Formats: sequence, C-alpha cells, structure tokens
Amino acid sequence: MGAAARAMANFGFSRLVAVTPHAPNWRDARSAVGAPELMEEAVETATLAEAVADCTLVVGTGSLTYRKPEQPVVSLPDLAPLIQQELARGGRIAIVFGPENHGLSREDLSFCHLLIEIPTDTHQPSMNLGQAVAVCLYEVATRASLAAADGAQHLNERKHLAASSADLELLGGVVAETLLAADYSPAVLRDANRYELRLLLLRLAPSARDTRKILGLFRRILWRIKRNRQQPAPSRSGSDLKEE
Amino acid sequence: MGAAARAMANFGFSRLVAVTPHAPNWRDARSAVGAPELMEEAVETATLAEAVADCTLVVGTGSLTYRKPEQPVVSLPDLAPLIQQELARGGRIAIVFGPENHGLSREDLSFCHLLIEIPTDTHQPSMNLGQAVAVCLYEVATRASLAAADGAQHLNERKHLAASSADLELLGGVVAETLLAADYSPAVLRDANRYELRLLLLRLAPSARDTRKILGLFRRILWRIKRNRQQPAPSRSGSDLKEE
Repeated sequence: MGAAARAMANFGFSRLVAVTPHAPNWRDARSAVGAPELMEEAVETATLAEAVADCTLVVGTGSLTYRKPEQPVVSLPDLAPLIQQELARGGRIAIVFGPENHGLSREDLSFCHLLIEIPTDTHQPSMNLGQAVAVCLYEVATRASLAAADGAQHLNERKHLAASSADLELLGGVVAETLLAADYSPAVLRDANRYELRLLLLRLAPSARDTRKILGLFRRILWRIKRNRQQPAPSRSGSDLKEE
Repeated sequence: MGAAARAMANFGFSRLVAVTPHAPNWRDARSAVGAPELMEEAVETATLAEAVADCTLVVGTGSLTYRKPEQPVVSLPDLAPLIQQELARGGRIAIVFGPENHGLSREDLSFCHLLIEIPTDTHQPSMNLGQAVAVCLYEVATRASLAAADGAQHLNERKHLAASSADLELLGGVVAETLLAADYSPAVLRDANRYELRLLLLRLAPSARDTRKILGLFRRILWRIKRNRQQPAPSRSGSDLKEE
C-alpha cells in the first residue's frame, strides 16, 4: 500500500481509496515516515461500489489467467486513447488494483468497464503490486496527460457524459427489484442476476441523462407491479420518461 | 534487488549484473523464496567498467536534480527509438541503476552514453528502486521490442557496429598513459583526465573498427615517447592505422 501511494505521488495522482483495508497494515502505511501526503487524505470505504461511485470509467487490473473475463481486455500500451476520450467528455476514471495475494474478485470485476493487461513474460506474468501500480500510472501519466489538456476544450458536449458507477448501481438495483417483483426468476438467483445486470449496464454504457430516464421508467414499473398486487391498477397519467 | 529481479523476470530480461553488492543483502536476495531464475545466473563484478564491458550503449538512470549532467538526457517515453537503433546495428545495451539511497556516482555516470529521466511529479520526483526498474523495463519491453525483430534484418551493416565499453575503456587508458608520458599534464590530474577522456570518447562514439585503429595509433605514440626517453627514435616503418 505504501509503495502504491509512493508511485501515485511520483506520477502526480492524489486520490487514493482503500476498500476494507487490513486495519493494522493500513494504520502503519498511513503513519510511515516519508508517506506521501495523499495517504493522509486517503479515504476508506466498506465496498468497491462506494469507492467508484462517482466514476464514469472503472478500469480493473490483474492477472487474467484463471478465467476469460466478460469485459473487454485492453493491453496497457493501448489504454491512453480510451483514457483521453473519457477525460475529453468530462468523465472521472478509477483504476482498481486487487490485494497482492489473490487480485480482484469476480464481484470486483463486475464493477469494471474494461480490464487492462500489462504485457508481461509468460514465464513470470504476475507482478508485485507496487510495481504494477507504478507501471500503470507511468503509462497513464505520460501518454494520456497531453490529451487531458486537449480534452478540456470539448467539455461543452456534456450531454454525452457517461453515467457514474453510482448511477448505474442505483439503476441496477431498481431493475433487479423489478425482476423479482415480476417473478422473472426465483429469489435464489437474485445475486446472480444482480451481477449479470451490472455487466449488462456496463456494456450498454448509457449516458447520465439516459440512465436517469431508464431509472424513472423502472421505478414506475416497480410501483405498478407492487400496487397491482394490492388492488387494480390506476389509470396512468403523465410521462415517466421526463427527467426527474 | 529482489524487486528489481522480479521486474526483470516480468518483462523478459535475464542478464543481471550486480556491482559490489552488499554481501548479506545480496545473499538473502539470491536465496529468497520465489526469487526468479535470473538471480541464480546473476553475475557479480567489482567495478561498473567490468559490468558494462561488452555493451555498446550504456544508459544511466536516476534523479538528475543535483547537477547538470554532461551526457544527453532522454525522457523515458522517448527512449525506444534509440534502443531500436542500437539493436538494429547489433549492439548490446545496459541499463544501469544506482543504489537506492544515493543513486549513481559521478564516476558511474561517466560510463553512460546517455541518461534517462522518468517524467515524475516535481513534488515527489524520486522513485523507489524496484518501481523505477519496473517502469523502465516496461517501456523498453513494450515499445522497443518490435524493433528488435525489424532490426535483425540490418545486421549486415556491421562495419558501423559501435565500440563496446571495454574497447573505449582500453583506448581511454592508453590515451591517458600517453598524455602522462608526454607530460601533457601533471600526474595529480590523472584521474580527472581519465574521467574527461571517458566522456570525450562517449561523445565521439567511434565504431569498433575505428576504435581499434585509434588504439593502434596511440600505442605506437606511447611506445615512441617511452623509447625516445631511453634512446633516439627508430625510423618508422609500415602503418599503425592498419587493423590489428
């Protein structure tokens, strides 16, 4: 954790979020001599969902040897244009690293729009965490930084601003609840459906505006289903597709 | 040292040379659980001159804040074309890292053809050694590797093969001895001259062939000076510029 923070300071990154860090290690890392300033301002969250809530592009990292991932996999040297594009439309980006011993879980990965792969040698593919962080941040800082300046000029096109992870998570929750209320599938599949829904929304990548519209739509559907169970449906009035 | 070796294994590098390593640390690093294979084959030398003897391009690293270096400084993202060029003409390349606490000495730097600078944030410019190695090797492995394949086609132009560090060091030694024999400067300046000569030869960057020619020339001059002191010079015959 200390090495990761050092690399962040080296490459000018400042916002570190630790998800359920191991308390003694986290305390030691924060109070270590020479710990960069950003450690003091680091935030601790209970879930990855909270950590990436305001982000519009979540990039996962780690060894992908164990299973074919569902998201697109991008080789690190090809990442810069994607970062540039996201910054150009005013997005916020998170790069997520897993714990050193086992990396990101399947659940963690379901919050990621794409995964990056560091092109390492097949005989020794797995990198030390601090070194992986350094390599990723070096790449982003040196090859996507110019674009950030260029991109700032295009911020007037904010109508295409991507939905944040929190927006999508909220929508996914309402959709899942709707499926359950509609007896779409049994309650035992709730977690599996939630997971699939999250990946589906990442693939769809709706804009922030469209996400609000869809959310309004599903809230109405959910309300209708629940109400129908109690009494006959009322006549529908107005539009649920207007913005909230 | 262990972290540096791990990064080498990650990016497919295999030849590690340690110059006067701290014995207990070196022993521990080599016998560490999970130490990559290249640690077993690592070579230990007493001087940097020996370590880079067969190399034709020696690249130094480290923070350059303390003093303006005499060699060209290249930003790491711009290094690949230079590596490619060197590989294309059949050269051997060394990347030299200093000890973590104080980096490469002025003497160490005098063996380097060029210095690379990792573009870090001005508030925290100094990188952890293992992370600096990872970033440099990532850059070279991903952005100069294609060229190595391309370059192999041009190996027929071997007449332009650069002199190795050992060739230049040998030449520098003979030139220094010649200057001394010629009373060019007092013996107290011997080390300073040796240092300046090393940098001069790096700037001149003679080919391997020309280096042999110049060496033959200086050997003859030196022999002449020494012999003159004992007895009148003999008449000169043949050419010292023919290849040895």
